[in-house]
Amino acid sequence: MDIQQYMANVGEHARDAARAMARASAGDKNNALMAIAGALREHRDTILAANQGDLARGRDNGLDAALLDRLELTPARFEGMVEGLEQVIALADPVGEITDLNYRPSGIQVGRMRVPLGVIGIIYESRPNVTIDAAALCLKSGNAAILRGGSEAIDSNQAIAACLRQGLAAAGLPETAVQVLETTDRAAVGELITHPEYVDVIVPRGGKGLIERISREARVPVIKHLDGNCHTYIDVDADADKAIKVAYNAKTQRYGTCNTMETLLVHRDIAATVLPELARMYREEGVELRGCERTRALLKDINAATESDWEEEYLAPILAIRIVDDLDQAMDHIHRYSSQHSEAIITENYTRARRFLAEVDSSSVMVNASTRFADGFEYGLGAEIGISTDKLHARGPVGLEGLTSQKWVVLGDGHVRQ
Amino acid sequence: MDIQQYMANVGEHARDAARAMARASAGDKNNALMAIAGALREHRDTILAANQGDLARGRDNGLDAALLDRLELTPARFEGMVEGLEQVIALADPVGEITDLNYRPSGIQVGRMRVPLGVIGIIYESRPNVTIDAAALCLKSGNAAILRGGSEAIDSNQAIAACLRQGLAAAGLPETAVQVLETTDRAAVGELITHPEYVDVIVPRGGKGLIERISREARVPVIKHLDGNCHTYIDVDADADKAIKVAYNAKTQRYGTCNTMETLLVHRDIAATVLPELARMYREEGVELRGCERTRALLKDINAATESDWEEEYLAPILAIRIVDDLDQAMDHIHRYSSQHSEAIITENYTRARRFLAEVDSSSVMVNASTRFADGFEYGLGAEIGISTDKLHARGPVGLEGLTSQKWVVLGDGHVRQ
Repeated sequence: MDIQQYMANVGEHARDAARAMARASAGDKNNALMAIAGALREHRDTILAANQGDLARGRDNGLDAALLDRLELTPARFEGMVEGLEQVIALADPVGEITDLNYRPSGIQVGRMRVPLGVIGIIYESRPNVTIDAAALCLKSGNAAILRGGSEAIDSNQAIAACLRQGLAAAGLPETAVQVLETTDRAAVGELITHPEYVDVIVPRGGKGLIERISREARVPVIKHLDGNCHTYIDVDADADKAIKVAYNAKTQRYGTCNTMETLLVHRDIAATVLPELARMYREEGVELRGCERTRALLKDINAATESDWEEEYLAPILAIRIVDDLDQAMDHIHRYSSQHSEAIITENYTRARRFLAEVDSSSVMVNASTRFADGFEYGLGAEIGISTDKLHARGPVGLEGLTSQKWVVLGDGHVRQ
Repeated sequence: MDIQQYMANVGEHARDAARAMARASAGDKNNALMAIAGALREHRDTILAANQGDLARGRDNGLDAALLDRLELTPARFEGMVEGLEQVIALADPVGEITDLNYRPSGIQVGRMRVPLGVIGIIYESRPNVTIDAAALCLKSGNAAILRGGSEAIDSNQAIAACLRQGLAAAGLPETAVQVLETTDRAAVGELITHPEYVDVIVPRGGKGLIERISREARVPVIKHLDGNCHTYIDVDADADKAIKVAYNAKTQRYGTCNTMETLLVHRDIAATVLPELARMYREEGVELRGCERTRALLKDINAATESDWEEEYLAPILAIRIVDDLDQAMDHIHRYSSQHSEAIITENYTRARRFLAEVDSSSVMVNASTRFADGFEYGLGAEIGISTDKLHARGPVGLEGLTSQKWVVLGDGHVRQ
């Protein structure tokens, strides 16, 4: 296969489809999503069989257990995937919304209209459910999509792709509105991320290695999610019960997520009140604690935290703890080590809460709440294509709105510029 | 000078200054802008003398008249520059605005807070007024800036930079919040656009060549403005008087601007009504007309428009004219040739106006108004750092808001994720 030629062909189909999708009504798009859900249920056994084929090949190729687990579509996961798609139908269509339409002194009315971005390229790893999830969000937001899943999931993804085409055709929308690449050649990724004439934005979903590589090589804008080294700061005026409850939840509710707290900062004058109890609770959960010198003086028998502990996103039952002198020292620590994902302060003090919200430069800043809330569903986006650690365009959880942009609309009555 | 070392040093200063600027109150920022205006007036003669030096060197180096004109700071231009700065003081501070703060089912309140982007790199050509203009917008929006003006304006820009530092210091803000590069080495641009650790976004202001080069080589996001190949479509149901007035204005009000109409599309059944009169008016202004076959059958003695005419941004008194069968053919033409800057329809028909607004994928879409309105001042932005032809982040005229982003704020009362 000539990959350059294949990708140019895919790109041209996507551009044409994007134009049709931008015009599609909310009703047409919802009909397509319903028809896709129907097709998925109808071809459930075919898809699960294709997935078994991927799993068998993966085992033969020596994939590790975690990867095989992510690859597997159980009947329950399959149903969850279709239900996720159906939830997107219920979301409001963002396209066409006009805001801030006001008269200007010249007499023209000027406002902004929300419009699709065009063609979204999504590059992801083994989970086949991303194929449905990403397709649904791109379609609902009026975009065309080019999806490039992991090579280990190629058969599952192609079986799902057939259902996508069937549903799109049933709703009278172009089948090429979602194209799932039929090649596992890595050169296809290189083509996908370097042709702004075909692709408007790339959303990579996967490990840090994948995202760093794509960001480095892309000539198309990337909405990227790098790491989440999140902090909670327990202020001197924290309510001790809230502090313990929130700091416990932020670490232990789930370990492998990007919004999990990785470092706990504690004001020196409240450390003796909250840390011994917290340490007891963490240890009961099997969380390894690593502390600064002052922390180690207070909590016996814990390891010393080194520079690398402040920098690391553990994604594991490990927590670094540092006792600080005041809010400024806490914010300096965050400024230096945070990946600018999500940070929380626990305090009853109005002025320090307000300062923390204003001055901490992370995509989510919180008062008296667990960093685990940093999530598109918790924020009411209805769905999430990813969490952006960039500053431009979209920061933090990205939903349908993040797959759109705003153009200017001007209404006149023969108005001319003087 | 070791350019890499110099730029790393500039970058580190900018990062530090950005943190202070993000915290600065609207009052502090306005005080700095007022102090800068004062310093500029105080050092007016020094700046004009430095500018004379640049001009003399430019003449010796054989710069052409147009470039020398752009480089020159006359007393009137100087006053206009300072007044522009003072207008930025009057603009609302976008930083810290919280919107959509709502309760979620979990009990947390979630909203968005507008925040500066961080460090803005601005690369521009000969006009020294851009130094003030760009500095004012970056400061007001709470960002730090690194400015790289044209080498031919180095003395003017350094004299202005001294006033920037004086004003910042007077307001207690870091002098490094705006750094005007002291080197004319082109390698400095290469460094500026490839270090995301120092710079959050690049705004190039200048010719297409400069912008294409920067976009190609940048590793930092770019808010770019490429060409403006703008269209006006006169629909069959246009009011002929409005059509003539608007189409005349869109071409002749100014020739060298990006929002000037370059191609006029006319419905075949209204062509005989509007084109002869329009042609007479254009010719009176000295506008050269180039037409399709049908246009040439109607207007005698005009040149044939070739494929390259549909593609070109003339920036000159030349207009391409095409007669089309209907709205769809007009929109197909726009889809194929437009640079997606600004397009207008002239019509009294509700449905076609609505379709044009929804379906034309340009940063500004207009009904019964001159494309010349596509401008930050006309749109009420108060000021304009540029006009974006990108889709992500900002489309069309970019004001203070385009130099900011939104982070999420979460307010709880000890809330934890279940």
